[in-house]
Amino acid sequence: MEAELMEPVKKAVHELDALFKPRSIAIIGASQKELSIGNVIIKNLVHYGYTGALYPINPKMDEIRGIKAYPTIFEVPDEIDLAHVIIPAKFVPQTIEDCGKKGIKAVIINSAGFSEMGEEGVALQNEFLSIAKKYGIRIFGPNCQGIINSDPEYKAYCDFTFTFPKPGKISIVALSGGVGAFIMQSLFDLDIGMRMYASNGNASDVSIPDVIKYYGDDEETKAIILYTEGLSNPLEFMEVAKSVTKKKPILAMKAGRTEEGAKAAASHTGSLAGVDISTELIFEKTGILAFNNEEELCQVAMAFATQPFPKGNRVGVITNTGGPAVIATDELINSGLRLPALSEKAKSILQTTMLPEATIGNPIDVVATGGGAHFRSAMDVLMEEDEIDSIYINFVTAPFTDTDEVARNIVEVSQLKKKPVVCNFMTNMSLERFQETARILKDGGVPCYSFPTTAAKALGALYRYSKTRSRNIGEPKDFPGIDKKKADVIIRQAQKEGKSYLAADGVYEILTAYGIPVADWWLANDIFEAESAAENIGYPVVIKVESSAIVHKSDIGGVAINLKNAAEVTETLEKMKLKFGTRNVKYLVQKFLPGGKELIAGVSTKAGLGHLIMFGLGGIYVEVLKDVVFKIAPVTELEAGEMLSSIKAAKLLDGVRGEKAINKEMVIDIIQRVSKLVTDFPMITEMDMNPIIAIHDKVYVVDARIKID
Amino acid sequence: MEAELMEPVKKAVHELDALFKPRSIAIIGASQKELSIGNVIIKNLVHYGYTGALYPINPKMDEIRGIKAYPTIFEVPDEIDLAHVIIPAKFVPQTIEDCGKKGIKAVIINSAGFSEMGEEGVALQNEFLSIAKKYGIRIFGPNCQGIINSDPEYKAYCDFTFTFPKPGKISIVALSGGVGAFIMQSLFDLDIGMRMYASNGNASDVSIPDVIKYYGDDEETKAIILYTEGLSNPLEFMEVAKSVTKKKPILAMKAGRTEEGAKAAASHTGSLAGVDISTELIFEKTGILAFNNEEELCQVAMAFATQPFPKGNRVGVITNTGGPAVIATDELINSGLRLPALSEKAKSILQTTMLPEATIGNPIDVVATGGGAHFRSAMDVLMEEDEIDSIYINFVTAPFTDTDEVARNIVEVSQLKKKPVVCNFMTNMSLERFQETARILKDGGVPCYSFPTTAAKALGALYRYSKTRSRNIGEPKDFPGIDKKKADVIIRQAQKEGKSYLAADGVYEILTAYGIPVADWWLANDIFEAESAAENIGYPVVIKVESSAIVHKSDIGGVAINLKNAAEVTETLEKMKLKFGTRNVKYLVQKFLPGGKELIAGVSTKAGLGHLIMFGLGGIYVEVLKDVVFKIAPVTELEAGEMLSSIKAAKLLDGVRGEKAINKEMVIDIIQRVSKLVTDFPMITEMDMNPIIAIHDKVYVVDARIKID
Repeated sequence: MEAELMEPVKKAVHELDALFKPRSIAIIGASQKELSIGNVIIKNLVHYGYTGALYPINPKMDEIRGIKAYPTIFEVPDEIDLAHVIIPAKFVPQTIEDCGKKGIKAVIINSAGFSEMGEEGVALQNEFLSIAKKYGIRIFGPNCQGIINSDPEYKAYCDFTFTFPKPGKISIVALSGGVGAFIMQSLFDLDIGMRMYASNGNASDVSIPDVIKYYGDDEETKAIILYTEGLSNPLEFMEVAKSVTKKKPILAMKAGRTEEGAKAAASHTGSLAGVDISTELIFEKTGILAFNNEEELCQVAMAFATQPFPKGNRVGVITNTGGPAVIATDELINSGLRLPALSEKAKSILQTTMLPEATIGNPIDVVATGGGAHFRSAMDVLMEEDEIDSIYINFVTAPFTDTDEVARNIVEVSQLKKKPVVCNFMTNMSLERFQETARILKDGGVPCYSFPTTAAKALGALYRYSKTRSRNIGEPKDFPGIDKKKADVIIRQAQKEGKSYLAADGVYEILTAYGIPVADWWLANDIFEAESAAENIGYPVVIKVESSAIVHKSDIGGVAINLKNAAEVTETLEKMKLKFGTRNVKYLVQKFLPGGKELIAGVSTKAGLGHLIMFGLGGIYVEVLKDVVFKIAPVTELEAGEMLSSIKAAKLLDGVRGEKAINKEMVIDIIQRVSKLVTDFPMITEMDMNPIIAIHDKVYVVDARIKID
Repeated sequence: MEAELMEPVKKAVHELDALFKPRSIAIIGASQKELSIGNVIIKNLVHYGYTGALYPINPKMDEIRGIKAYPTIFEVPDEIDLAHVIIPAKFVPQTIEDCGKKGIKAVIINSAGFSEMGEEGVALQNEFLSIAKKYGIRIFGPNCQGIINSDPEYKAYCDFTFTFPKPGKISIVALSGGVGAFIMQSLFDLDIGMRMYASNGNASDVSIPDVIKYYGDDEETKAIILYTEGLSNPLEFMEVAKSVTKKKPILAMKAGRTEEGAKAAASHTGSLAGVDISTELIFEKTGILAFNNEEELCQVAMAFATQPFPKGNRVGVITNTGGPAVIATDELINSGLRLPALSEKAKSILQTTMLPEATIGNPIDVVATGGGAHFRSAMDVLMEEDEIDSIYINFVTAPFTDTDEVARNIVEVSQLKKKPVVCNFMTNMSLERFQETARILKDGGVPCYSFPTTAAKALGALYRYSKTRSRNIGEPKDFPGIDKKKADVIIRQAQKEGKSYLAADGVYEILTAYGIPVADWWLANDIFEAESAAENIGYPVVIKVESSAIVHKSDIGGVAINLKNAAEVTETLEKMKLKFGTRNVKYLVQKFLPGGKELIAGVSTKAGLGHLIMFGLGGIYVEVLKDVVFKIAPVTELEAGEMLSSIKAAKLLDGVRGEKAINKEMVIDIIQRVSKLVTDFPMITEMDMNPIIAIHDKVYVVDARIKID
C-alpha cells in the first residue's frame, strides 16, 4: 500500500520516446480540408483517443476539427514533444529551425519533395538535417506515413492510414508505407492486436535499425515485423538485429528478390537497385526469421503474440477429424518438426480416457464425437510427455458436441504456457453458436487458424525461432601464427604500383602468410631455374607463364598441366620460350595434384556491408549446378562448418563410391583464414581460389587470384 | 415466342442425376433426436430450401421436424429418386433390397461399420453391393457425408455438415469429409459460391472418378476442387481426368506426401499407405493443377470461378502504391509470368492520361491519388496491348480518392473478359465506406485478395492451367521394326523356368529386339570363345562371369573392366576359371566404353497403375543428388523430351567444359522404346539400365537387368 503513495519511479527515458510516446503533438500544416493529410492526422488522433495535448498550427484558422489552432508553434503555451510537418518542402528547413527554438524533440515530416526527387531535394533534406542536428531534434521521414503507438497510456495515431489497431504485442516497421499499412490491417483482421507501427519513408535520420532497437527495448513488444526492400546501412542493421533477436523474434520479409522485383523497387524508392542476396544473408547471420510470403508472415505472427517457444522439434498432434491431421502432419514434417511415438505411460492413460473409436497414437484422434474431457486428457498427457515440445490441435466444431466445452478445456491447458499450442479451428463463423466457441479460444490466447497447413506453418515458425535463438555462431577465431605484416607489405607495394590484381607469387605468399596451404610452387626467372624447381617440387607439375603482358594464358598455350618428368618439363619450357620470348617472362612451377576433389572458395564485396565469403564444389558443380553458399565475413568456425554442410552435394565431401572423405577440418580452417585475411585488408575487393584440391587427407589451394582497390 | 409454347427439350439424363438432382428424397432412419444425423440431414434440407419432396422414414413416428413420416418406403405414395440410409450396418443389405423393390435409383449410406471395420464389414459391404447391382441402384458411401447441390432448381443439401453455400461455379469432391467441409467453408468465407459437393467415404460404388466425370459434364461447373490421399483406381482416374481437364480445370491437393503424413492417412482410412509419388505423376500427366497448400488452393479457386484464361505469360501490373507492386512482381516472376515493357503507343497514351507523379512502365504506378479515370485508362491500355495477356491490380483504398469510382472502372473493363484480371484489394473492411467499394468489385466478378503474393499466385495458377490445357503430350509412338515375338519367346521361357531375373543374353536380346542399342556383346561358353569374342568386338572390353549360382559377381572378382588387349583378356579369364570353375559358367564379353557420359533409366511398377519410367544421370548424380525424374508409361516423345530437360543437371547433357553434347534424340528414342517394351509385357515388374553410356554421338545400354513376375 505504501508503494501507491510513493511517486512513480521515473522510467528510463529513451531518445525516441518523444516520437513514440509524445505527451503533446503539434500539427504544422493542419488543415480544415477533409481528406487532406493535415486534417486526417488530427481526425485519426482524436478518433483513436490520443491522451496528450494536440496543437493544430495554421496561421489562418482559429480551430480545426473543433480543436483550438495556433498561428505558429511559438504561440503554443506548453511544451511540445512531437511535431508533424505537412507543408511544402521548401518551407521545411525554416520550420525545423523554429521547432528547434521551441524545444521540440522529434519531428515527423510527412511532406514529400526531398531525396526521392533528385539533387535539389537531397540538398533541401541535408539542409533541414543539419538544422535538426544543431538542436538535437530527431527527424522521422520525410516523405513518410508516421508512427502509431496503441499503448492506452498514449494512443498516439500519428499517421494518415485507416486501420485502428487494438493494443497488442507485435510492433511493425516497414520501409514501404503501403506494405506496412496492409500488414497492420492484416493483424487487425486476424484480431491479433498491435503495439507500435512505424513507416519512415526517406529515413533521413531515424532509421529502421533505430526503430528496431527501440522496439527491442520496449518490454511490451513480444515480436517485431519488418518489411524491407534492401538495407541502406547493413552494418548498423546487423549490430542492432543481432542483439534484438536474442531478446525477441524479428519476422521479416525482403521484397525485390527477383530482378524484375528489384527493378520495381528501384522505381518507387529511387535508391535501391539490383537483386542482392546480402539482405537474406544478414537475416540468417543475425537470426531474423525470413519469409517470402507476407500473408504467411502475418498469420505466423499470431502465434508469436501469445505462445511460448518450444524447447525442441517434437510435436504432439490432437485431432477430431482424419484428413486435416494428414495435411497437418505433412506440413509439420516439412517445417522440420517430428511426431514422436507416445510413451507407454501416455498410451495407457489415454486408453482409459478416450472414446473406444479414438486412435491412440501421434496424432491422437479423439474423433468428432469427442468432447471437452477427451481433448483435455489428450492435452494433459502431451503436456506431461518428456518427448513432446509443442502441441498442434485440429478442432472441427462437430454439430453433435459441446464445442464451447472443448474450447474451454483447450484454453485452460494452453494457459499453463508450458508448451506452445496452435489450433486449426474449422468452423462456420456465420453461425452464432460457433462464434462463442471462437471467442473462448480467442480470449484464451489460443492462436486459431482456418487451415491445417497454416496452423502447422505457425508452429514451424515458433520452432524456427527457438532454434535460431539458441544458435550461437560464436566469435571469429584468432589465428596467432598469421604474418599480417608480410601481407601488408605485398598489398601496399601492389597499390603503389597501381596494380588491381596481385602477381601470382604475391598471392601465394599472402596465402602462406595466413596459414592457407598452397600446392608447392616456385616462381622461376628462367628455364633453368624452372627445371630445377620442377625437380625439387617433384613430378607431376604444372607450368604457367607469368607476365603482366599475358592475360588469358591458358587460351594461348601459357599453361601446361600434368608434366610427368624432366623431359616433358624441358620440352614444354622450350615451346613457351619460343612463343613468349624471355623479356619480362617468368615461369610459375607448381605441384600438380591429379585425382583430388575440386573445391572453390571466393570473396566478393558488398558496398556498406563488407565481404561475402563463398564456398562450393568446383567444376560442373559450380558451373552447371550453381552449388555454392555465401556467408558474410567475418565467418566463425560454426558458420564455416555450415557452409560445408549446406551445399546440395554435401554428401560428396564425405566420400561416395568408395572415395575417402575429404579433410573437412582443413577446409573449415581455410575458410576462416580467408575471412580473417579480407577482414584484415578491406582493400581486397575480390578473391578467387579455384580450384582448391582435397587429396590424400590434405587440402591445397592450387590457383588463386586477389583483386585490390 | 413460339419456343416458349413448346415443351422444354428433355435434358440428357445422367446416371448420377438421381444422386445429384433428386426430385424426391427418403431419409431411412430419420430421427426426432436433435443433432442426430437422421435429424440434421432433414433440418439441413429444409433450411437450405430443398425444392423436391421429403419423406422421413421411421416406423414409430408420424412426423419429423413437422414433415409427415412413413413407417417404410413402401408406404410412400410417390416415386423416390434418392434415399439416405442412416441405420445400423447389419440392416443395410435388407434396406437396399427394399430400395430396389421401390425403384429407388440412388442411395447415400451415411452409416458406418463396413469396409473401414475389417473383414466382417467388407462382407456386409459386398452383400449390399450385389443387391444394389441387381436393381441398378448407385450407392454413395457408405461411411460418408453425402452430396450438396446448390442449384436453385434443386437445393439438395444431402449432408450433415454446417456450411450453407451460395450457388457458384466451383464443385468439390473430397476423400476426407473433414477436409471437404473446410474447403467448402473456405469458399463460403471467401464468398465465392459453390456448385456441387461430394464426399463419398468408403466409395464402394460411386467413385471419385465418377464424380469428377459428372462435374466435367455439368455445364455450370467451371472448376473442380479435388482432395485425396491416394487413388484406389489410378487408371480409371487417369482416363477421366485426362478428358475433364481439357474442358475445365481440376485443382487438386494430395496429402500424405511425407512418410509420417502417409502413416496418418493410413490410420484414418485404413486402406492407403506409404509415400507414393504416382498420384503427383498422374496429376502431371493428366493436366491436373497440384497444390501443396489447401489455403492457396481455395484462394486460387476464386479467380477460376470468374476469369478467362490468359493466352500467355505476359502480365501488365497496375498499382497505386509502391511496395505491394514489388512483392507482386517477385511472385509473378516466380510463377513463371513476365512483365514485358509497354509499347511506345501505350506509353504515349498513358503520358496524356496519367497524373504527373505517375510512373509509366510495367508496373504502371497510377499513384495513391489516382482515381477511376486513371485506373480505367491503364486497364484500357493493357487490354489493347498485344504483348499483354493478363492484368494484375494493386488497389489500396486511399482515403483521398473516390474508391467506388475506381472499383466501378475496374469492373467495367474486367467484364469484357478479354484478359483475366486479379486484384489485390487493400482496405479496412470494418469501415462502411470501403464495404461498398468491396461490394462493387465482388458483384462485378473481380477476384479480390488481401495480399499481393496471394493475388499473384492466383494469376500464376490461371496461367498454369492455360499452359497445361494447351500442352498436348501426343500419343505413344509405334515402332514398326520391333520384334515383339522374340521378346515374347524369351520371357515365356524364363517364366517357364521359374526365373525372376532374365539371363544377361536374354536381356540384351530383348533390348536389341526392341531397337534399343546395346554395347557389342557375346555370351561365350568357354575361355576360347571369350577370347575370340573380345578380338571380334575390339578392345577395350569388359568380361563378366555369368552363372545362375553367382549373384553379386562384382564383389567377388567376377567382373573385369577395361581389358585393353588379348593378353589382359587371357590373364583375366584364367583367373576367373580358377575361381569359378567351368561348370555352368559362361563369360559375357562386352565392349568397354570409357570416358562417355553415364546415364541411367529404369522401370518400376505401381499396383493398379502400371509402369513408371525413370531417367537420370548416373553415378553420383543418382546416388548423391537423387537427380532422377519419373513418368507414367506409356511415355510419349514429348514426355521423354521433358524427362531429359527436367533433371536438375540437364545442362550437362548439352556439354559443358568443352565436352560435346550427348545425342539426346537417341536417349529420347530409348526411353520410348523401353516404355513400349514394358507396356507390351506387363509381367516385367522391374528394369534397370545402368549405365547407359553416351559417347561419340551415340548411346549404348551397357548393363541391364529385367525382372519378371
